[in-house]
Amino acid sequence: MELYGYWRSLAAFRVRIALNLKEIPFEVTSMDLIEGQQFNDDYRKINPQMVVPTLVDNETVLTQSLAILEYIEEAYPSPALLPKDKLGRARVRSISLISVADTHPLVVPRVRKYIVEEMGHTEEELSAWIKNWVTKGLTAIEEILNKDRETGIYCHGDNITMADLCVVPQFGAAKLFEIDTSAFPTISRIFEECMTVPAVFNARPQAQPDFPKEMDK
Amino acid sequence: MELYGYWRSLAAFRVRIALNLKEIPFEVTSMDLIEGQQFNDDYRKINPQMVVPTLVDNETVLTQSLAILEYIEEAYPSPALLPKDKLGRARVRSISLISVADTHPLVVPRVRKYIVEEMGHTEEELSAWIKNWVTKGLTAIEEILNKDRETGIYCHGDNITMADLCVVPQFGAAKLFEIDTSAFPTISRIFEECMTVPAVFNARPQAQPDFPKEMDK
Repeated sequence: MELYGYWRSLAAFRVRIALNLKEIPFEVTSMDLIEGQQFNDDYRKINPQMVVPTLVDNETVLTQSLAILEYIEEAYPSPALLPKDKLGRARVRSISLISVADTHPLVVPRVRKYIVEEMGHTEEELSAWIKNWVTKGLTAIEEILNKDRETGIYCHGDNITMADLCVVPQFGAAKLFEIDTSAFPTISRIFEECMTVPAVFNARPQAQPDFPKEMDK
Repeated sequence: MELYGYWRSLAAFRVRIALNLKEIPFEVTSMDLIEGQQFNDDYRKINPQMVVPTLVDNETVLTQSLAILEYIEEAYPSPALLPKDKLGRARVRSISLISVADTHPLVVPRVRKYIVEEMGHTEEELSAWIKNWVTKGLTAIEEILNKDRETGIYCHGDNITMADLCVVPQFGAAKLFEIDTSAFPTISRIFEECMTVPAVFNARPQAQPDFPKEMDK
């Protein structure tokens, strides 16, 4: 399989974890979102939305990270990324969507670019925007994880689920954006736990071949 | 079942269509998002994210519209909102997510409020923001629907799927926001087709009990 992604794309990060967990071999084609490689005509043909990730398997072209995760789950059921019971599945999907739908899309490169270039905001005002939405998303997730009995070692019980695949990149990005994460102890605990799992650790942005060397500390 | 929603919430609109199609009886509790009823302590207990919709069925509390649609699909399989084949399901979910994740969250009340109140923008600048993201989302969806052989009477084949449940509200909102929709002939055709289906027509914002009388033309 070929994954069109980018080292710092949270959406590509989610898919990399899933592929690693299911032991599905894949190659990465890096699309530099900052340089605008996603707007190339060739890429637009496979992904008309011109975003990453896209997962290509022979003639099969899959887009939108959460749709890709659901596909991977259906095509490669083991290990499962969704619990068996309907209510558990709904809980996992709901936590996932707080990040995937209501948090991450507000801070992607195209939105940041619009806020600075079209709306004329400073980097400081952009930071306040990012901090506001990431904090709101993580606050809701923390409250759910903290109150629900279903929370275990991971977001849902003691096995990694789709929710962890969404929450871990979101929390990692919060740290990248230097957002105060002290109000999210449950997420922080789950993040650290996930990072001990090689399938997650090896999927992190810093481990990608296109991660810029100058950012290495 | 009890649906916490709001007449103009696109996310609640999606769920109302699903409940109607599956013939699941439900009552609506209106949460006035503009007045901020979603921030009430009682509501926060059932939906820590303080957004609509929430679907409550006895002890069962479901949040996030797409997670609710997947739950309804699993619990009430007929009529199906997802095709049987994995690739078709991935296509339907991907189209859904272009609206649910990458378009709608950018124009919800809390974001519009932040742009006006925190960033100091005019209503005109806010309109440009809304137009930009809604147009980008619909452009991607139109391109996919126009090029794919899988597109039929509806977004995917000749039966209503989850994709229609997401695209119809998004297109309806574009018209509400007075966005030029002439570049979206395929979406427009599917929207009109869907509006001939009572389950969709009766779920539209204008048909809700909390739709403001003064907006009736």
